[in-house]
Amino acid sequence: MSARTLFLTVGYDGTDFSGYQIQAAGRTVQGVLEQAIDHLHGHHVRTIVAGRTDAGVHATNQCVSIMTDHPSISVADMAAAINSRLPADVRILGVREVPDGAHARYDALRRHYRYHMLVSPYGLPHLRRYAWRIPFAPDLQAVNRDATALIGTHDFTTFAARREKRDSMVRTIAYAHIDARGDRVTFAIGADGFLWRMVRSIVGTLMERDRDRRRGVDLPDIRELLAARDRSQAGTTAPAWGLFLSGVDYPDWSGQTHSDGTAEGGARDE
Amino acid sequence: MSARTLFLTVGYDGTDFSGYQIQAAGRTVQGVLEQAIDHLHGHHVRTIVAGRTDAGVHATNQCVSIMTDHPSISVADMAAAINSRLPADVRILGVREVPDGAHARYDALRRHYRYHMLVSPYGLPHLRRYAWRIPFAPDLQAVNRDATALIGTHDFTTFAARREKRDSMVRTIAYAHIDARGDRVTFAIGADGFLWRMVRSIVGTLMERDRDRRRGVDLPDIRELLAARDRSQAGTTAPAWGLFLSGVDYPDWSGQTHSDGTAEGGARDE
Repeated sequence: MSARTLFLTVGYDGTDFSGYQIQAAGRTVQGVLEQAIDHLHGHHVRTIVAGRTDAGVHATNQCVSIMTDHPSISVADMAAAINSRLPADVRILGVREVPDGAHARYDALRRHYRYHMLVSPYGLPHLRRYAWRIPFAPDLQAVNRDATALIGTHDFTTFAARREKRDSMVRTIAYAHIDARGDRVTFAIGADGFLWRMVRSIVGTLMERDRDRRRGVDLPDIRELLAARDRSQAGTTAPAWGLFLSGVDYPDWSGQTHSDGTAEGGARDE
Repeated sequence: MSARTLFLTVGYDGTDFSGYQIQAAGRTVQGVLEQAIDHLHGHHVRTIVAGRTDAGVHATNQCVSIMTDHPSISVADMAAAINSRLPADVRILGVREVPDGAHARYDALRRHYRYHMLVSPYGLPHLRRYAWRIPFAPDLQAVNRDATALIGTHDFTTFAARREKRDSMVRTIAYAHIDARGDRVTFAIGADGFLWRMVRSIVGTLMERDRDRRRGVDLPDIRELLAARDRSQAGTTAPAWGLFLSGVDYPDWSGQTHSDGTAEGGARDE
């Protein structure tokens, strides 16, 4: 059987990981994932991830691609086969075959993140690793006015980690809004891509502005912060444990035929 | 200052506890709670709990009463003072003064539980300790017909742990229903009291019947199961980690004056 390209939908609890990417030291999602996949194959299999997440950040819907040449395990059985070799804090949630050459990182059209908060004076113990505790309910209307000003194509240097060095700091945010259900508050954002710590910088800034607004502080417009291209204009970075990578969008490859003619896939539409 | 009776609202993550109640061996919620309260007072303080929960069961809104004679810490400062002495998996979420003699267990009018499920073939890692993974979305209408048949005053021997031995197995269920939001399914139930493992037996049975219904099995009416007063008529016990004690109702003591005349409390209305 020739090699097939698979997209794995991956969920993980980021609590006990030093982030996604393999490092010299520390337990990583990529490390345990490759260990399981390599064990299944009997040799090293390269993985490509849609979005590298930081230490403590969770995922409900990360995408990791592999090229598999496994002689016997079908696409349908691949999730169970890998899961049986994974620790409980990482799960393959689904597997689909994609056209040869499909790339989890370069082909991603949009990434979706959710940031969870809990309004509570002391916090609920079972959420301590999965939601940022905030002392007051935010003014949703005002926060959403700020969030709306972030939508569109902008240079996001102001909301990137200072150490972030990329060719372009320009990203296009498709949506950004905050919503509440009782004491649970969720900020949702989708973009073509995100700079390092961008979501957490945005959430930290929006919440800091919410607090300042309550205190009657006169705030500059979000557009001014963006225009400054200066991290010191933004607020603190919200903690990692509230952040979830919740989805990655790809082109619709379903109509294509696979290069070897056997599967539903096919040569890439290029 | 004379002794005051306080009701503590307590939240805990049941994962690392051998249940609420102190035992010969094993870490218990009562154990760590009393250790913190005793340390604050410099002597042993007796606690009374509304509902003893089993190993692995969580609480967002448990009620524990204490009689405090602490000379300096106000009711308003009590939560912070105890929390500073507690591990991260237990939190005091609120403290209120109640009339002398108010009893967290005997005065409870209604207990509320929520049981969380996740519809998923492999489960989301960050929910693995807080929701029961079920493979198929339940037929909500059919499950709610079953749940409705449980409402009212019945002998619940069928849904109690076999080892449960109480004078009366009769309880009054005020509400019981299942609801879904995407892949998250929640069963909510409230009653004057519950027998040992009653909520988990009910959830396990409702889900087993849902599965059997999907397979076309002809099912006896829930009323027949109740009438049998026989645990073997019910289904499996759902796992502990999906269960949350979510509230305890007490009489409205707010209009009463405290026996020492200083606080908003007062002699009990008897």
